[in-house]
Amino acid sequence: MRTNRIETLCDGIFAIVMTLLVLNLSVPVVTAEAELFNELLAMWPKFLAYVISFVVLGVMWSFHHRLLDGLRKSDGWFLWMNICFFMIVAFVPFTTELISEYRHWSAAIVIYGINSVASFMLLYCQCWYASAGGRLIDECIQAKSILELKVTFAGGALASIAAIGFSFVNTNISIFIFAIVYAAFVVFVVTRGTFDARDAQADSKQDA
Amino acid sequence: MRTNRIETLCDGIFAIVMTLLVLNLSVPVVTAEAELFNELLAMWPKFLAYVISFVVLGVMWSFHHRLLDGLRKSDGWFLWMNICFFMIVAFVPFTTELISEYRHWSAAIVIYGINSVASFMLLYCQCWYASAGGRLIDECIQAKSILELKVTFAGGALASIAAIGFSFVNTNISIFIFAIVYAAFVVFVVTRGTFDARDAQADSKQDA
Amino acid sequence: MRTNRIETLCDGIFAIVMTLLVLNLSVPVVTAEAELFNELLAMWPKFLAYVISFVVLGVMWSFHHRLLDGLRKSDGWFLWMNICFFMIVAFVPFTTELISEYRHWSAAIVIYGINSVASFMLLYCQCWYASAGGRLIDECIQAKSILELKVTFAGGALASIAAIGFSFVNTNISIFIFAIVYAAFVVFVVTRGTFDARDAQADSKQDA
Amino acid sequence: MRTNRIETLCDGIFAIVMTLLVLNLSVPVVTAEAELFNELLAMWPKFLAYVISFVVLGVMWSFHHRLLDGLRKSDGWFLWMNICFFMIVAFVPFTTELISEYRHWSAAIVIYGINSVASFMLLYCQCWYASAGGRLIDECIQAKSILELKVTFAGGALASIAAIGFSFVNTNISIFIFAIVYAAFVVFVVTRGTFDARDAQADSKQDA
Repeated sequence: MRTNRIETLCDGIFAIVMTLLVLNLSVPVVTAEAELFNELLAMWPKFLAYVISFVVLGVMWSFHHRLLDGLRKSDGWFLWMNICFFMIVAFVPFTTELISEYRHWSAAIVIYGINSVASFMLLYCQCWYASAGGRLIDECIQAKSILELKVTFAGGALASIAAIGFSFVNTNISIFIFAIVYAAFVVFVVTRGTFDARDAQADSKQDA
Repeated sequence: MRTNRIETLCDGIFAIVMTLLVLNLSVPVVTAEAELFNELLAMWPKFLAYVISFVVLGVMWSFHHRLLDGLRKSDGWFLWMNICFFMIVAFVPFTTELISEYRHWSAAIVIYGINSVASFMLLYCQCWYASAGGRLIDECIQAKSILELKVTFAGGALASIAAIGFSFVNTNISIFIFAIVYAAFVVFVVTRGTFDARDAQADSKQDA
Repeated sequence: MRTNRIETLCDGIFAIVMTLLVLNLSVPVVTAEAELFNELLAMWPKFLAYVISFVVLGVMWSFHHRLLDGLRKSDGWFLWMNICFFMIVAFVPFTTELISEYRHWSAAIVIYGINSVASFMLLYCQCWYASAGGRLIDECIQAKSILELKVTFAGGALASIAAIGFSFVNTNISIFIFAIVYAAFVVFVVTRGTFDARDAQADSKQDA
Repeated sequence: MRTNRIETLCDGIFAIVMTLLVLNLSVPVVTAEAELFNELLAMWPKFLAYVISFVVLGVMWSFHHRLLDGLRKSDGWFLWMNICFFMIVAFVPFTTELISEYRHWSAAIVIYGINSVASFMLLYCQCWYASAGGRLIDECIQAKSILELKVTFAGGALASIAAIGFSFVNTNISIFIFAIVYAAFVVFVVTRGTFDARDAQADSKQDA
């Protein structure tokens, strides 16, 4: 089974989920210009939630893209790990809105954290399943690249668990942890967003 | 006619329909943390309906993916069987919400059952039309694999009819039947989600 | 410029527009089982509008799929004819709901008719532009197949104009014309949904 | 890393965002035919906002399509420039609705202008990043074609800044500037929507 159908479904679902929070923005009904500015300013938590949710989903999508880029085929187990992953990922806009509204309550942090842990655990499982014994992974991908991805996903899950724990002490610590983790992940996917071996292969094909 | 356009349309429609029930989740407006937990707990039937609908659609998508994986081309009849299939499948979130709200009423079970029967009958028709006389199917696909799919789809349709019948006796029996059927189907698509012959072919191409 | 991006955008837009009317279906809130049946029965114009809109969009998509299947490349003019076509097509759910609510008023028929005329005129323009002087069309496509498509699109536009005219006499005549036209088009795309020459080519490649 | 995943995500997001304003159109509830006409006429700002938003997004999509058509590969930085671009582009329906409702207020013009500037700056960055030192661009693309794109994107950004400035004098001047710019861009993408070198290459492949 090729991976192209999983990729198209994935891109469709991410496209919808990424734009979900923008679907609900509606133009305020006002009668004076100053009022318009105030109404738009009052919408800032919605804009912020949209941007955070988009960036978090962008990170998830980039990791998923990177992983599938390294596969030579798919199978039934891998497909269903993906379906579970998409199901979890579709909650990101909801939990992001929750955290942006109620960031001082540990309840919101806990729910956001569970969503985050589940996403990274599913990415870890996909990575482990695909690479164990070279099951689905392309031969050209180095073990080092896979290990790097696994460590990243495990780190994301562990940091989220820590953030959940700290939420009972001080929710600001939790939010600080999430911010650091996602900032680090954006740096990771931007600077190392692709498998070197894959690129070398593509370049040599181009030259041939 | 190649099958790629049907696949892209299919993936787009499934992406929308799978995330449909999550579109309607909105963050509760509360003033106390305990209230937030209660409000979120009170939303459990919505979360449950989302998960069930996602899994059922995941099963449908996996079966459709598997079937199209085995085709070498498409034609006008097959294309319209697909359009009808998508039209039926788009009702799954609606009927799932119905059954999760009113699971003790046979009316809800009957409507859910009709949706389920129609989906499996259309999958059966697609399978039969594509394979009869080798019309659209790839030569490498074994008759045994096709028979397996046909039996599965016929089984799904018959079990759904049985569930409709039992709903007039006891709706719990109907729900139990649906649960067993979909659990069995998840096992089927996870463990046998691909055509062996297709994979063997792909592996040999890789080696060449 | 290859046609694949237009196809992906097209499939994405049709996926959304086809499922648009199902997005608005919501489970009725009732307290008795008989009430549930009545509420669902009262929703029949919504279900009917959904089915009609899905079939009409299915016809449009099939025609567009067939046309693009015969092209070897695209260009800027063709791309923008497509963008205009998608803009018009996205109104189909709205005009279908209008006609299903107010089918006895010529106003609804006129608006639906204009939408229909515009769609077929844009399909005709695409067909004419792509085929004139072999600009974008593949060499293997016979002039006869192109003429057939052009006659079909011109016929659809003319019949819709006739339906608009008759709406001032009797709206039932208009609805009858639309029903006949779309029924004929479904038969057309089902039985002749592909270019024979394209298929012959694909089959010979398979054999080689 | 190939560009195909970015293209599918892009097409999915544009498909949703282009149809966003049509999602909110709902059939008016009336009791007399004359009332229906009046209600529909009263909806004209919504229809106009939809058409403008669709055309503006069509221009953005065409430029993005043209740019990616000229790339031979992608990387992490380019991928994230795209994610930022999609995030900005998803605001177009919102800012278009704002400008169509409050076109006499500089507040609306300023917000629309910022959205427009950000879009063109991100397109410029993508173009610059991909072409600098031949990083991602295909060898067959001439420097002249890239320069042309860069000048266009810089021009779009500068014109939008000018429109923002003039909004404090007279908002009609701003709207006139936006209208001229987008009209010119539609002409650009229609008449020069593709790289000549790419087409020549494709044609020679076809002949071979």
